[in-house]
Amino acid sequence: MAEGISLEELQLAARNHGMPLEALRYPVTPVGLHYLLTHYDVPDVDAGSWSLRVRGEQEVSLGLDEVRARPWVELAVTMECAGNGRARLDPRPVSQPWLLEAVGTARWAGTPLRPLLEEAGVGEGAVEVLFTGVDRGSEGGEEQAFQRALAVEEALRDEVLLAYEMNGEPLPPQHGYPLRLIVPGWYGMTNVKWLCEIEVLREPFSGYQQLWSYRVRQTEDEEGEALQWMLPRSLLVPPGIPEFMTRERFVPAGEVLVQGRAWSGLAPVASVDVSADGGSSWRAAELEPEEGRWAWRGWSFRWQAEPGACVLCSRAGDEAGNEQPLEPAWNLGGYANNSVQRVPVTVTG
Amino acid sequence: MAEGISLEELQLAARNHGMPLEALRYPVTPVGLHYLLTHYDVPDVDAGSWSLRVRGEQEVSLGLDEVRARPWVELAVTMECAGNGRARLDPRPVSQPWLLEAVGTARWAGTPLRPLLEEAGVGEGAVEVLFTGVDRGSEGGEEQAFQRALAVEEALRDEVLLAYEMNGEPLPPQHGYPLRLIVPGWYGMTNVKWLCEIEVLREPFSGYQQLWSYRVRQTEDEEGEALQWMLPRSLLVPPGIPEFMTRERFVPAGEVLVQGRAWSGLAPVASVDVSADGGSSWRAAELEPEEGRWAWRGWSFRWQAEPGACVLCSRAGDEAGNEQPLEPAWNLGGYANNSVQRVPVTVTG
Repeated sequence: MAEGISLEELQLAARNHGMPLEALRYPVTPVGLHYLLTHYDVPDVDAGSWSLRVRGEQEVSLGLDEVRARPWVELAVTMECAGNGRARLDPRPVSQPWLLEAVGTARWAGTPLRPLLEEAGVGEGAVEVLFTGVDRGSEGGEEQAFQRALAVEEALRDEVLLAYEMNGEPLPPQHGYPLRLIVPGWYGMTNVKWLCEIEVLREPFSGYQQLWSYRVRQTEDEEGEALQWMLPRSLLVPPGIPEFMTRERFVPAGEVLVQGRAWSGLAPVASVDVSADGGSSWRAAELEPEEGRWAWRGWSFRWQAEPGACVLCSRAGDEAGNEQPLEPAWNLGGYANNSVQRVPVTVTG
Repeated sequence: MAEGISLEELQLAARNHGMPLEALRYPVTPVGLHYLLTHYDVPDVDAGSWSLRVRGEQEVSLGLDEVRARPWVELAVTMECAGNGRARLDPRPVSQPWLLEAVGTARWAGTPLRPLLEEAGVGEGAVEVLFTGVDRGSEGGEEQAFQRALAVEEALRDEVLLAYEMNGEPLPPQHGYPLRLIVPGWYGMTNVKWLCEIEVLREPFSGYQQLWSYRVRQTEDEEGEALQWMLPRSLLVPPGIPEFMTRERFVPAGEVLVQGRAWSGLAPVASVDVSADGGSSWRAAELEPEEGRWAWRGWSFRWQAEPGACVLCSRAGDEAGNEQPLEPAWNLGGYANNSVQRVPVTVTG
């Protein structure tokens, strides 16, 4: 578990931040409450001199005004860091020590990627599309720009966006100004920020963030499996009031409306169940209407809270039959830990 | 130092967040990069039913439209958490584990407090003015709303604001929507968020956040001294590029423009000195023009970086003769640690 966090992990936790769970009340997360992970530094991009280079069969270069002159689309998209839940694994993989909060939903707006790729020409032998950000740093002993690739068929999905707006405003610097990639349904690492180059590849990309990082595996010798779609997860707004230091919750006895949100990249959310006894017994929550395929789905549950100590949990399942596990499955990088949240609550008489 | 951070400290670090130091490049910190500390939960305030109650010789109640109809003033104000630097103390006081980043500067706009207090009537026997937020929680074993008081003469300073805008927009929920107090020059705890009541007191306030927390003392038996004005501090933008996990910096040899910002609540910044050898020798940085008394002041330094490992530091002094110490002074709550920042840099050949 999370005891014994190192100075290096704390340095990351002080820079990056999760979404305080009470912000689950907002269908669209206000800027500043959405989770944020920056691998290197937030770069200082001058939009006047910035351009996006697209290298397909032809090479195309666009300034920000040219990107903005293209068709405009807005999508509400829930984004979760692949490392969410890492600090709840035992032994704890050492990296950004997320507990539960590395998630948020924004209205991302920009222009669809597909027509731009088709104009540049994908070509017959294309296998992947590589996305490069302006941000540079050192990781795994290699100096690098942040780069991730998508299989061509993923890159050509209609809902993949080049976004220059978040919640109706230009992207804030920390969320990728002036332009970022949005791949609805996938974990956060795919959504390359500060995007400056898109390149159609005839060989699979073998960069650090693709072949070494962001893979589910047990040992460094395994190739492992690349992280892609978000696994199902539900989180609830911790009810009542908190103790400052422990975050323990205090709730008066009686009926409590427990609310939360659930998502799955793999398939639409089909069910949310709630437990007030730490996962021994479960009852169905009421799902709110969907707000689009790519945004989380609200739910609520009327809980009859009786005096004493208890542990609230919620568990999501999706239409493909995936369900959150009660216990985490360990892996080397600490990825995709979607085991159920446990919220200790003291119900006062 | 910061080794061995507990789960409870990590829970706070995942909710609250500092300003990534590269954001020192912005004279006004973009929303979402400004530091944020929430004692309890970000409350869900409906501005339509919210009102501000002012209890002086008369009682006055104002809705948000009435507050907004009053004279409008905007001030750029640097705000730092009193606990900034806490996790760099040894032994480490256990609370929100800030390293260096708990700071930011915003353009706060609203209406001056003084005329409103005078309209309500301060009266002869008044000693303090108490400010109460909507947010509730438990701390030190007491259920409470977040409350802080100011001496009457402080509350009547011309530049004390009731702010409803941050950087030209309505306050975001996490920064106190719909209204917060801004006391330029003081540490963050004074700037009560989600403000709902102002009360003129004839006896000093003895609440938890005033008499127990936010005091500099060595033991629990001491009364200690209340935190007020921010001590001088300078921070620099770590140059070059970072290693992801360690945050170690890599800079090519040659001239490097080192930039930073400095502030002091006690008096205007008078000097910033820079060291490239961990504090053994110091040279004067060039100060940029002031951008108002209450905002940090930019500075720059042309550094001739020679290959090898070194430690960059900067140190601010103010016009009252206060200067940052090289080593921290320990206290029980881990407050006001303004010892100089040390940035390890590897200069590559």
